[in-house]
Amino acid sequence: MQIQKIEGLIDAPFTPFASNGDVDLSPIPAYAAMLAKNGLRGVFINGSSGEGYMLTAEERVQLAEAWMAAVPRGFKVIVHVGSCCLRESRRLAAHAQQVGAWGIGAMAPPFPKICRLEELVRYCEEIASAAPSLPFYFYHIPAFNGAFLPMVDFLKAVDGRIPNFAGIKYTFESIYEYNQCRLYGQGRFDMLHGQDETLLPQLAMGGARGGIGGTTNYNGRCLVGIMKAWERGDLEEARRLQNYAQEVINVICYFRGNIVGGKRIMKLIGLPLGANRTPFQNITPEEESRLRDELEQIDFFNNCNLF
Amino acid sequence: MQIQKIEGLIDAPFTPFASNGDVDLSPIPAYAAMLAKNGLRGVFINGSSGEGYMLTAEERVQLAEAWMAAVPRGFKVIVHVGSCCLRESRRLAAHAQQVGAWGIGAMAPPFPKICRLEELVRYCEEIASAAPSLPFYFYHIPAFNGAFLPMVDFLKAVDGRIPNFAGIKYTFESIYEYNQCRLYGQGRFDMLHGQDETLLPQLAMGGARGGIGGTTNYNGRCLVGIMKAWERGDLEEARRLQNYAQEVINVICYFRGNIVGGKRIMKLIGLPLGANRTPFQNITPEEESRLRDELEQIDFFNNCNLF
Amino acid sequence: MQIQKIEGLIDAPFTPFASNGDVDLSPIPAYAAMLAKNGLRGVFINGSSGEGYMLTAEERVQLAEAWMAAVPRGFKVIVHVGSCCLRESRRLAAHAQQVGAWGIGAMAPPFPKICRLEELVRYCEEIASAAPSLPFYFYHIPAFNGAFLPMVDFLKAVDGRIPNFAGIKYTFESIYEYNQCRLYGQGRFDMLHGQDETLLPQLAMGGARGGIGGTTNYNGRCLVGIMKAWERGDLEEARRLQNYAQEVINVICYFRGNIVGGKRIMKLIGLPLGANRTPFQNITPEEESRLRDELEQIDFFNNCNLF
Amino acid sequence: MQIQKIEGLIDAPFTPFASNGDVDLSPIPAYAAMLAKNGLRGVFINGSSGEGYMLTAEERVQLAEAWMAAVPRGFKVIVHVGSCCLRESRRLAAHAQQVGAWGIGAMAPPFPKICRLEELVRYCEEIASAAPSLPFYFYHIPAFNGAFLPMVDFLKAVDGRIPNFAGIKYTFESIYEYNQCRLYGQGRFDMLHGQDETLLPQLAMGGARGGIGGTTNYNGRCLVGIMKAWERGDLEEARRLQNYAQEVINVICYFRGNIVGGKRIMKLIGLPLGANRTPFQNITPEEESRLRDELEQIDFFNNCNLF
Repeated sequence: MQIQKIEGLIDAPFTPFASNGDVDLSPIPAYAAMLAKNGLRGVFINGSSGEGYMLTAEERVQLAEAWMAAVPRGFKVIVHVGSCCLRESRRLAAHAQQVGAWGIGAMAPPFPKICRLEELVRYCEEIASAAPSLPFYFYHIPAFNGAFLPMVDFLKAVDGRIPNFAGIKYTFESIYEYNQCRLYGQGRFDMLHGQDETLLPQLAMGGARGGIGGTTNYNGRCLVGIMKAWERGDLEEARRLQNYAQEVINVICYFRGNIVGGKRIMKLIGLPLGANRTPFQNITPEEESRLRDELEQIDFFNNCNLF
Repeated sequence: MQIQKIEGLIDAPFTPFASNGDVDLSPIPAYAAMLAKNGLRGVFINGSSGEGYMLTAEERVQLAEAWMAAVPRGFKVIVHVGSCCLRESRRLAAHAQQVGAWGIGAMAPPFPKICRLEELVRYCEEIASAAPSLPFYFYHIPAFNGAFLPMVDFLKAVDGRIPNFAGIKYTFESIYEYNQCRLYGQGRFDMLHGQDETLLPQLAMGGARGGIGGTTNYNGRCLVGIMKAWERGDLEEARRLQNYAQEVINVICYFRGNIVGGKRIMKLIGLPLGANRTPFQNITPEEESRLRDELEQIDFFNNCNLF
Repeated sequence: MQIQKIEGLIDAPFTPFASNGDVDLSPIPAYAAMLAKNGLRGVFINGSSGEGYMLTAEERVQLAEAWMAAVPRGFKVIVHVGSCCLRESRRLAAHAQQVGAWGIGAMAPPFPKICRLEELVRYCEEIASAAPSLPFYFYHIPAFNGAFLPMVDFLKAVDGRIPNFAGIKYTFESIYEYNQCRLYGQGRFDMLHGQDETLLPQLAMGGARGGIGGTTNYNGRCLVGIMKAWERGDLEEARRLQNYAQEVINVICYFRGNIVGGKRIMKLIGLPLGANRTPFQNITPEEESRLRDELEQIDFFNNCNLF
Repeated sequence: MQIQKIEGLIDAPFTPFASNGDVDLSPIPAYAAMLAKNGLRGVFINGSSGEGYMLTAEERVQLAEAWMAAVPRGFKVIVHVGSCCLRESRRLAAHAQQVGAWGIGAMAPPFPKICRLEELVRYCEEIASAAPSLPFYFYHIPAFNGAFLPMVDFLKAVDGRIPNFAGIKYTFESIYEYNQCRLYGQGRFDMLHGQDETLLPQLAMGGARGGIGGTTNYNGRCLVGIMKAWERGDLEEARRLQNYAQEVINVICYFRGNIVGGKRIMKLIGLPLGANRTPFQNITPEEESRLRDELEQIDFFNNCNLF
C-alpha cells in the first residue's frame, strides 16, 4: 500500500454521553463542523480521549457510523479499533473499512501487558489484516498501557510484514526516538505528532507534517496556528502559541487531564458532551467553577475554538 | 448479605479453544469432573487464566452457561465479569446471577489504570449492584493491571457501602497486607489465597480457609494436599508439598507463566485445551518437548491431577 | 570457608547523633546491653537503619570500633560496608576484619543502579575479598536501591566464586524466592529473615533459624518471642505475637517508616538517639505526640524492649 | 546572588584512571585543552560521566584541583559535589569555593530515594550554603536516582530560600517541563540543556543558551555546531548535525551508554582514560573492535573532536 502521509492536525474527539449514560450521537454533526471550522483535518475516534475502551462494541460501531455521516467531504475519519479482545477489534476494523473510514488505528492492549515485540507485531498484524484496504496506524501511548517497547525495532519488524501499516501516532516524550522513527527507511512511515505540548520542538526536528491532538478539541486554533506559523517561518509566533498551548495544558493537569478536565471544557465553550464513564472521577460543580476561573485567567475563552 | 466464607480451593480454569480459534465448550464437562475428583471445590471462570479479557461478551456468557451445566452439585461457579467497559461487566454480572452462579468477581480494569481508591470502589460498586444477590469478590492482581492500592483502606471504603461485597482474591506478594485484611473488622471479609507458591505461609499466619488457584488445574492434588496436611498438623508434609508446588511453578516460569505454559500442561496430562489468543505467544512444539522433559525430571506425571 | 549459620535475631541499630549532628558514640554501651538483654544475638551496624550511606567513612570506622568495644562476649557485630565507592567499601571491610568483627555485609549500590547480575557479583566479590577471613552477607533490599535481580541466579553465580560468601539478608516480599534460595544447594547458604512483618510465615516454610530485624530495636522481645513460640510448637502464641509486630509496624508506616519513625520510638522508650540526617524529614514534636498516643493505644510501652 | 546564565556548552568529563585503578591526573591538561579547542566552554566534573559517586572524597578533591590548574582562562569549572553523605558534600562544596571553581552542582542522592519535595530542597539548601559565593545548580537526572519530582514546584520552593541557587541541569525527556521551568519567574533561573540527543528541539522552544553535554567529550564539534547553526538561522545544518549526534548516540546505546561506551571512545580518538570502576562492566576488546567499526561506518573519526 502506498502511504499517504497526513498533513495537518487530526482531532481525537470525546464521546458524547446522555445523562442516563447512553452514547448520545446528536452532538456529532455540530462537533464535526466545529472542528473543521477551526482548521482540523479529521478525527481519530474511539481512542483514549473518546473513552473507546469503556464502550461496548455496538456503541463503537454506532459512533463510527455517526461520524462518517457527519463529517464534511475530505475530512478524515480514523477509527481506533484496539481492544483487549482481538476478535472484537477485527470486527470493528472490518466495519470501519465497510463504512468508508479513511483509516484505522490501535494502541497496544493494556491486558495482557505487552512485553515482547513479537506480541505487539502479531496483535497489529491480525487487526490490520481485517481492514486490508485501509492504512493502519499504531497508537504508541505506553504511559497508558505499559507497552514500553522500542519503536524503531517495531518499525523494522512490521516493515514488509504488515502491508497496510502506515505509521505511528507517537504519544510519548522521547523526541529522540520519534526522530529516529521518522528517519527510518528514508522516511517511509508516517510519524504523527501525538503530544500537543511539544508540537514545535517536533516540527523543529524535521519533516513530519501531521499530528493527532487531544487538546485540539477546544484549543485547535492555537495548535493549528503553531503549524502554520512554523511553515511560514514565524518562529516567534510559533513559540508564543506553543507556550500558550502549554498554559492550557497546565490547567488541565490539575483537573485529572484531558479525558476528564478537557471534556468538561467542551461544556464551557458551548458543546456539552456529558460525563465520563466509571471509573473516571467526573469534575464536580466546584471543580468546574475553578476550571472556568483558571481558564479565564489565561484569557482562554477569547482564544479557544469557535463555532 | 451474610458472607459465607469459602473453604478449600477454587480453580481458575483455562478457556478451551478449537483449532479455528473459536471457544470450544466440549471439554468443559470432563474438565469440571476432573477438578472435582482432585479435590477442588469450584471454579473462578473467565479470569486471567481463562483469558477473560480476550473473550467477547457473548463468549463469556456461553462459557458461564457451559460451566453451570457441567459442574456437580455443590461445586461453586464464580464468574469473573471484569472488563474495561462497565456496561458489559454489569450485563455479565446480571447474567451470572440469572443463571445461578455462586458468586462473581472482578479485577481492577487495566484501562484506564486505577490510581485513586474512589475510582476502584465506584467500579466495584457498580458491578456488584448488577448482581445484588450474589457475593462479589474483588480480584487483587496489581502486577497485571497496575492498581497498586492499599487493600485495608479499600476494605474500609467498601465496608457498609457495597452490600454484597464478600472479600478479596488476593494475588500479590505481601503476606503482611493479606494478614491485615484478614484481621480487618474481626475477620469480616473472606480473604482468599491467590498465590499457589505461598499457600503454606499464608495458612501459618491465620485462619483463612479458602483460596483460588491457577496451577490447581494440573497440580491440584498437591495444593489441596497442603491444606489437608496443615489441617491435620502435619507440617513436614505441608512443607514437602509446598516445596513441590514451587518446583512446578519454577518450570512454568520458564515457559511464560501459567496462562501460556500452564495451559499447555493440560494437553500433556490429557486434556488439550488449544492455543492462547493473541497477543500471547504460544508454546512451540520444541518448547512443549522441553516442558515435558522438565516436568518428567520432577516426576510430575505421577503427581499431577488425575482423570 | 565453612558457613556458620546464624541462629536467632540480629538487630540493625540506629546511629546516635548529637544535637550538632555529629555521631554520638556515648549511648552505644547501653544500647548494646539493652539489645542483649531482650534476646537479640548481635548487631548489623551502619546499614539502612543506621543511616550508613549518610555517614562519612571515618564515622563508619568509629562506629565499628565503638560497637566492638561495647558488645558482650558472643554478641555478633556484622558491619555493613556497602557504599557507592568500592575503594571505600574495601577499606571498611578490611577495617572490620582488623577490629575483629564477626562478619560483613553490603547492599547493592544505589548508584549506578545495578541492572546486570555480573555487575552485582563483581561488586560483592571485590568487597568480600577485602575481608577474606570474615563471612560476607549480601543485603537484598531492592526497594531501596532498585537492584531487582533474581536471587537464585545470584547464588549460583557466587557459589564457588566468592570463597567467603555466607548468605543473604533477604528484605523483600517474595517468600517464594526466599524459600528457593533457602533450598539452593541443599541449604548451603545462610538465608536471614529480613522482614519483621512476616517472620512467622518464613518460619513456617522451613528451616531458617536466623534473621536481621529493624523493629527489634524497640520491639525485640516480641520478635524473639515469635521464634521461641514457633520452636516450642505454640502456633497460637506465635500468631498473636506476629500480629502484634504488625500492629507496631502499622503505626510506624504512618511516621515515614523505621528509619525516621522507629528511631524516634527509641527516645520514647528511654534511649534518645537524636535526629536523622538530611534528606530524611525528622519527626516533628506534634508527630511525636501522635506517635506516642498511637503506641499507647496498642499498649506498646508494656510490651517494648526493656532496659 | 545575580545569576549569570551560561552560554554555550559545558562538557561533563570522564575521570581518568590508571591501570591499577587509581585516579590518573596526568591526562587532564591535554583533556582540558582539547575541550576548549573544540568549542566547549567549561567542564562539569565529578558528575555521572565522571563516576563521581564511585570516587573517594579525597579523589574528588584532587580532581577539582587538577582541573582548576589545567583549564585555560575563562573556561568554567563546575564541581559536582553531590553524594549520599551531606557532610561530605558540604566539605566538597567548601573546597570548590576555596579553590576558585566557577560553580557547584549536585544531583538528588540515590539513597535514600527522594520522595518529597521538601527533602530535596533541604538537601540542596544545606549543600549550597557550604559554598555561598558560588552559583549552585541542581542536576535533575531522575532516571539515575529515582527523584521524579516536579521541577516547576521545585523552583518555586527554592526561589527566595536558597540565595545562590542558579538553575537546573535538566537531563530528562520532558521538553514541556523544561520549557515551563525556563519560563518560570520571567526566566529567572538558568535552565541548562542536559540531553545531547535533543538540543535542537530545546533550542526551538526558546531562549536557553547553555547546556551540559556528555557526548561532547568526543562529539563536541557537532554539538557546538548545532548551537551555532541555530544561532545563524541555518535550520537545515542544525538538523543535519542533530541527526548526526543521534547517530553517534545510537551507537553508544549498544555499548552500555556514555559512561562505559563513551569513555572507551576517548581511547579511540587518542585520549585513553582507562577503565570504569566496578560495578560498571567495561568494554571488552571484542566490543571495542565492534565499537570502532560502527563509528567508522558513520564516518565518526572525521567528525569527532580534534586535538
